[in-house]
Amino acid sequence: MMPAQVRLETDEQEVLAANQAFYQAMEALDLAKMEAVWWHEEWINCLHPGWDLISGWEDVLESWTNIFRSTVQMRVKVSRALVHVLGDAAWVSCVESVTSTYESGFETAQVETTNIFVRRQGVWRMAHHHTTPLPGRVPSGTSQSVQ
Amino acid sequence: MMPAQVRLETDEQEVLAANQAFYQAMEALDLAKMEAVWWHEEWINCLHPGWDLISGWEDVLESWTNIFRSTVQMRVKVSRALVHVLGDAAWVSCVESVTSTYESGFETAQVETTNIFVRRQGVWRMAHHHTTPLPGRVPSGTSQSVQ
Repeated sequence: MMPAQVRLETDEQEVLAANQAFYQAMEALDLAKMEAVWWHEEWINCLHPGWDLISGWEDVLESWTNIFRSTVQMRVKVSRALVHVLGDAAWVSCVESVTSTYESGFETAQVETTNIFVRRQGVWRMAHHHTTPLPGRVPSGTSQSVQ
Repeated sequence: MMPAQVRLETDEQEVLAANQAFYQAMEALDLAKMEAVWWHEEWINCLHPGWDLISGWEDVLESWTNIFRSTVQMRVKVSRALVHVLGDAAWVSCVESVTSTYESGFETAQVETTNIFVRRQGVWRMAHHHTTPLPGRVPSGTSQSVQ
């Protein structure tokens, strides 16, 4: 991104940066940041762990509003990120290790995720988020402290 | 597909036809048909319900081999198919209602699925298959007959 240099990053690096920005918005519980990483279109989709599919930016934004409102802290570690770029579309397969803290306690989950990104005028943003909690790896953490 | 006409189908229709061909291969328990609907690449991914992610055609083919070998009959009803095309990439969100019959009985499941397709030389094939069993909609069917 330095003025004297062009294409410092490969497409794959740019997509992984967009993927990371999404998780930073989650960790920050910051709606403005979350708004900035998605395309605001009717045809976008979001499947939160344990939810039904949500379609359309308006409803997706509402879901993040509710999640952020009910969450005290969220920590996400992303691993095994596989990225594939094809033109102005790209998808990332990754594993999220999520620890969510609520007023009543906390829970941790391993989540297998597909994130699809779309590039417009050089900018990659999320168009599709699909999560699957991995069975047998969702320990209940209510008897431990997250600190 | 009639010789006198060009582009009878829209991109979206072509992608939905590729999506349907995938489920027809599943229902037929036919490895040759399953081979025909996927790209045979190292970077493809497949997440079967309740499995870990499988990457690369060789391992994905092995997984279908094992599934087809252990299954007597499979019926899949696809609903709420949402399709988005961007250049030579496309993704379909759909719900699979799957009934699998084994020697020991059968099970039914509702599965939220993302299928990503890639077009090469006019042909759409699958590059990514991600399934999530929907909680609370996986009735055990061992006390009923599938007939």
